[in-house]
Amino acid sequence: MRCDKMWTNARIATLSAPGLGVIEDGVIAARNGRIAHVGRAATAPEIDAAETIDCAGRWITPGLIDCHTHLVHGGDRAREFEMRLEGASYEDIARAGGGIVSSMKATRAASEDELVASALPRLDALIAEGATTVEVKSGYGLSTEAELKMLRAARRLGEERPVRIVTSFLGAHALPPEYTGDADGYVAMLCDTMLPAVAAEGVADAVDAFCEGIGFSADQVDRLFTAAAASGLPVKLHAEQLSNQHGAALAARHGALSADHLEHLDADGVAAMARAGTVATLLPGAYYFMRETRQPPVAALRAAGVPIALATDCNPGTAPLTSLLLVMNMAATLFRLTVDECLAGVTRNAAMALGIGCKTGTIAVGKSCDLAIWNIERPAELVYRIGFNPLHARVWRGQ
Amino acid sequence: MRCDKMWTNARIATLSAPGLGVIEDGVIAARNGRIAHVGRAATAPEIDAAETIDCAGRWITPGLIDCHTHLVHGGDRAREFEMRLEGASYEDIARAGGGIVSSMKATRAASEDELVASALPRLDALIAEGATTVEVKSGYGLSTEAELKMLRAARRLGEERPVRIVTSFLGAHALPPEYTGDADGYVAMLCDTMLPAVAAEGVADAVDAFCEGIGFSADQVDRLFTAAAASGLPVKLHAEQLSNQHGAALAARHGALSADHLEHLDADGVAAMARAGTVATLLPGAYYFMRETRQPPVAALRAAGVPIALATDCNPGTAPLTSLLLVMNMAATLFRLTVDECLAGVTRNAAMALGIGCKTGTIAVGKSCDLAIWNIERPAELVYRIGFNPLHARVWRGQ
Ligand SMILES: [Zn+2]
Ligand SMILES: [Zn+2]
Repeated sequence: MRCDKMWTNARIATLSAPGLGVIEDGVIAARNGRIAHVGRAATAPEIDAAETIDCAGRWITPGLIDCHTHLVHGGDRAREFEMRLEGASYEDIARAGGGIVSSMKATRAASEDELVASALPRLDALIAEGATTVEVKSGYGLSTEAELKMLRAARRLGEERPVRIVTSFLGAHALPPEYTGDADGYVAMLCDTMLPAVAAEGVADAVDAFCEGIGFSADQVDRLFTAAAASGLPVKLHAEQLSNQHGAALAARHGALSADHLEHLDADGVAAMARAGTVATLLPGAYYFMRETRQPPVAALRAAGVPIALATDCNPGTAPLTSLLLVMNMAATLFRLTVDECLAGVTRNAAMALGIGCKTGTIAVGKSCDLAIWNIERPAELVYRIGFNPLHARVWRGQ
Repeated sequence: MRCDKMWTNARIATLSAPGLGVIEDGVIAARNGRIAHVGRAATAPEIDAAETIDCAGRWITPGLIDCHTHLVHGGDRAREFEMRLEGASYEDIARAGGGIVSSMKATRAASEDELVASALPRLDALIAEGATTVEVKSGYGLSTEAELKMLRAARRLGEERPVRIVTSFLGAHALPPEYTGDADGYVAMLCDTMLPAVAAEGVADAVDAFCEGIGFSADQVDRLFTAAAASGLPVKLHAEQLSNQHGAALAARHGALSADHLEHLDADGVAAMARAGTVATLLPGAYYFMRETRQPPVAALRAAGVPIALATDCNPGTAPLTSLLLVMNMAATLFRLTVDECLAGVTRNAAMALGIGCKTGTIAVGKSCDLAIWNIERPAELVYRIGFNPLHARVWRGQ
């Protein structure tokens, strides 16, 4: 077998079999950016590799996947954070120009180049920990022009860095001030104008929304998702974060890729997600940062066989977080996910949540050769340590 | 004024005045490793510097100080962490060889070179975020020979890397199996044999102990601290972490540098610390990792004027944490410390907790030129972001 690159003397967590799918003394071969072979050295075919890398017993996992981020945005909300610690009320912060509107203003004011430049350090932090795929949402523009600008900036991140960028159109993130008191009118504009423009330009891979008392109602999301289907785009939803709006069940009815947050998800929602094959994306960083106390129903999701993904939710207001290793530790510490669940959450299940499970997320023949190579003695270390990055090397598309 | 190095065009948080002691458009000059000048550019004297660094408006803070770590230890406890997530009881873990005894065994089995080598990646993680001073405790050897080995390894870290290492002798960390049922006998041996050996070799800068139901009683600590005074060593204490043993008040009576953890500290303890000038070192990483719910009495400490320091508590069992930036975020998020308090906690007050407040911890003339230079727009960003390192450069002793 001829190939371009081969990694030998590795311990491999393929994530393609129950548990971690561990192969001791393993070999991976890549050809044209894809995995051409993976297995035990003892049973490997003859491989004629242009380049061979001795991993010296290091562990290899699939490249990590952050399947829910708001990585592209103008400004930050550090001053708001500071004011809150000094005892400022939400009214004080609103009066000082804080909140989501401040992110919207900063995003509208920024050029596409500026959005790319400000997002790159955050993307680099994810990449430095082995991320090979990152989802990026719009949702701070809230006008056709500004949402398109965000999505173009997101796409450009994938040209600036060796990483797969998957985009989601989140026009239904918040009600822009132009539509105060007329949420239905804004949703109609989303369906009739903004979404078609986004779809026509091909800058979005999915449609997302924020279903919440302070966001959009299940009825409004239902209309948007119907329009998304007409545009040929899959859907996903910010659901049951602050209250139970039965958004997850609605998303499942629309065959959503994922429902995300889910602290207030009920048994009916779990069952609906299980039936539809909708992934549960948990965001422990937002839970931590917002000092939530209500946990997502992990035991019920597990029992129903709903795949659980994990992501940073990187955003300026509720999770200024750029570490998937930390996300795993938080999921274990705060939500009691096991080590295996944490690793599946940022690899296999995160790929499913993006609808690219056939392309990446596990180490299997035919998939993109996206790998993270670690200086660790056991995979549990990736979840156990806090604020420590043991990445030795990262491989994206075989490079 | 002649000097070796000068930093210009900087925004400086000196930490040497109320709030952050901010100097806009500031200049710092170093001579022979010390700060020769700090102030506004407009009022600076004529400075003749061998090298000038334009900071391009970046922020400079004092180099960070981690004043409570167990950085030197054998092994890790990732497997124990994994088992706990899978539902193992403490008995299961003990039967599988886990717990503090496993760290003791691994530490005893390791050579001094191995202890240095395994600690360096953890130290490097702290340095990468701007740490210029790191405290390191013994306490996993629990025999004269193994405790000396740990302390020598700790000292050597300061030769391997450009960082100030401050050591604490923590022989009274746990009861070694050789003394099961005879804690008083072990404490007598500590006072009569181990402590004198440690003091004679000059490998410890202070004496520490773990005062707790599962550690040592206040009476036993009292004996140890009396012996420490006779050896000319200052003391500090792990106090009131799991229960109120009135350890902080005891430590204050002995003029302790710091009392650490303090979740169960009461009003009398706060008052005693305030009178003695004992620093309160809070360890939010251990609180987080152990899922504690009882918070240290921050409001009472504040009201009494007790200086609050923050540290990682980096250790394999209860805080495998190597990020002071994350410690600040946790102190703000979990304990509601303000941004100013967080920054003072890892600079000025951390230096006081180590008894080296006259040498480092603030940017002031005569102190060691220990600086962290940051790619940020406001100091609050250092506390607000999670899992993101904006360090631009680090300076230790003017280099
Ligand atoms: Zn989100
Ligand atoms: Zn400790």
